[in-house]
Amino acid sequence: MTQVIVLNGGSSSGKSGIARCLQAILPEPWLAVGVDTLIELMPSSMQTSDAGIQFAADGEVIVGPEFRKLDTAWMEGVAAMARAGARIIIDDVFLGGAASQQRWQKPLGGLNVLWVGVRCESAVAAGREVARGDRVTGMAVLQADVVHQGVFYDLEVDTTHAESMECARTIAAHVT
Amino acid sequence: MTQVIVLNGGSSSGKSGIARCLQAILPEPWLAVGVDTLIELMPSSMQTSDAGIQFAADGEVIVGPEFRKLDTAWMEGVAAMARAGARIIIDDVFLGGAASQQRWQKPLGGLNVLWVGVRCESAVAAGREVARGDRVTGMAVLQADVVHQGVFYDLEVDTTHAESMECARTIAAHVT
Amino acid sequence: MTQVIVLNGGSSSGKSGIARCLQAILPEPWLAVGVDTLIELMPSSMQTSDAGIQFAADGEVIVGPEFRKLDTAWMEGVAAMARAGARIIIDDVFLGGAASQQRWQKPLGGLNVLWVGVRCESAVAAGREVARGDRVTGMAVLQADVVHQGVFYDLEVDTTHAESMECARTIAAHVT
Amino acid sequence: MTQVIVLNGGSSSGKSGIARCLQAILPEPWLAVGVDTLIELMPSSMQTSDAGIQFAADGEVIVGPEFRKLDTAWMEGVAAMARAGARIIIDDVFLGGAASQQRWQKPLGGLNVLWVGVRCESAVAAGREVARGDRVTGMAVLQADVVHQGVFYDLEVDTTHAESMECARTIAAHVT
Repeated sequence: MTQVIVLNGGSSSGKSGIARCLQAILPEPWLAVGVDTLIELMPSSMQTSDAGIQFAADGEVIVGPEFRKLDTAWMEGVAAMARAGARIIIDDVFLGGAASQQRWQKPLGGLNVLWVGVRCESAVAAGREVARGDRVTGMAVLQADVVHQGVFYDLEVDTTHAESMECARTIAAHVT
Repeated sequence: MTQVIVLNGGSSSGKSGIARCLQAILPEPWLAVGVDTLIELMPSSMQTSDAGIQFAADGEVIVGPEFRKLDTAWMEGVAAMARAGARIIIDDVFLGGAASQQRWQKPLGGLNVLWVGVRCESAVAAGREVARGDRVTGMAVLQADVVHQGVFYDLEVDTTHAESMECARTIAAHVT
Repeated sequence: MTQVIVLNGGSSSGKSGIARCLQAILPEPWLAVGVDTLIELMPSSMQTSDAGIQFAADGEVIVGPEFRKLDTAWMEGVAAMARAGARIIIDDVFLGGAASQQRWQKPLGGLNVLWVGVRCESAVAAGREVARGDRVTGMAVLQADVVHQGVFYDLEVDTTHAESMECARTIAAHVT
Repeated sequence: MTQVIVLNGGSSSGKSGIARCLQAILPEPWLAVGVDTLIELMPSSMQTSDAGIQFAADGEVIVGPEFRKLDTAWMEGVAAMARAGARIIIDDVFLGGAASQQRWQKPLGGLNVLWVGVRCESAVAAGREVARGDRVTGMAVLQADVVHQGVFYDLEVDTTHAESMECARTIAAHVT
């Protein structure tokens, strides 16, 4: 039985929309947690400190040691929720590619995880970044490929030409 | 010289995304106003009264006399902004079709208006309604066709298979 | 008959809360518009340009010519809404003191306006700025006094020791 | 060393503002999690189902078995984050009074917890509920007293006449 679905993709690749569609079509209730959730829970000073997380004007995201420390504890907590019986969709951006996946593998050890790559052509993601209007311009292009480097998946979806709902249906067919 | 762009389409057809892309690619600054803006400015009681605006559980939107009265004054004000020199993108849902367009034509009289229909196949719009997660389910399907009945346009775009940015570029080519 | 209520005060002085309380207790429906509304309607690039509006790290707000031009048209439009019969609460920050008030007096000419000063001790406003968590730190202190310089009021309220609802009741008693 | 701060109080008693002030003044970074966080992570259908969570028009909040199940797993996860080294501020509404506290005591067992009661006179909380404008009217009054029944605290603060920052300073003095 699938306990955790990990959606990894660059900014504006469509992960959150797929997560909401999955929540709507899967028969059981699933919690959808993401890196945005964690950032909202942190002190606002974490976004203006070298030790925290910085969103540069060109779209680069730089993560410091304080952010990393809270992030590690957050991962342990999310895994504990799954062990306690909550089905969880994790929406993340593997800025470190394979190394980021390994950071999740440790806390998720022993859980039944479905690893999903969410791809989107960088030019299309860049346009959607403008259309949504709430992101630093440039993140979509910078992250589009690097987040998938060395990452292994159970399945991949591509939102370039497929709707969120269609991708969610493909993923749902792999949830056991 | 185009002074006002009116984007008319059903809920979740993609009007707001197109408006933000237009703001990004047009050389001059444009204000983007919508029916959502107006609702936010109203007393919250306006959403729980028969005289205001009601969002039924099936997605139907019912507008009462108090809402209508403020809406009429709002239209006059938006037109006055355009006359005072602000370029304006209006994002609206013509629930009354041609009658809704006529309500705008009076205040916009004498202004150079580009009327744009924003279409989206209702099944696709319904999926996007789920993906965005902040709308009453059912609005997209109920509004997809009715908002275009009897309405004339200078041009139409269809977001079913085209990205917001692509639609914005098509519209921008008609802005003089 | 009062047609417009102008609430002027520094950031985090409590204007928006008072506006919502006024909307709740006044017998007729009132629209509440503010400078935040206008900023949301502008292109997001307006917040990253010298010609637009800049929120410096120390809380200073610098307004450029492009922002000013749209702002002037916005004021004309808001006044036109009032002339068309909508009762309007304007929530503003007179960064230029008396000069800012004069900018409103021109479009509001002939309308029945209630000018209200919203004061709050700067140390208290600074604490509320932290508590709300969505503002650049420092704005509250920088704006607390300067926005009232040379401005005339029909009445003043002080949120330092009075609740929003209490201030709203005081103001409502002056609405005719 | 304090690992967890639990803030319990009725709706609109000022818990979130105090949490943000604590995050700003405490020397180490703290995560602030609340019941609102959990609700956002759930499927939106959870808010329209008898088995989920319902916000009645009079302000009553009714929690069903599906909500409860996810809530229990969420509590385990939050406690695991604290055990993994994240300092956590929990902002909660003990609708069941002492029974709600007992539900937290189990997962938080062995952690160093500071239990804080956040009180606010119900008439004042009701006014703030109107001023914030994003809550069902009536919750503040219905919850003001019941959430404290039978609950023990390490300290209590009262926001009726004290600012969020002042309450945060009082609490911070008890954090070891």
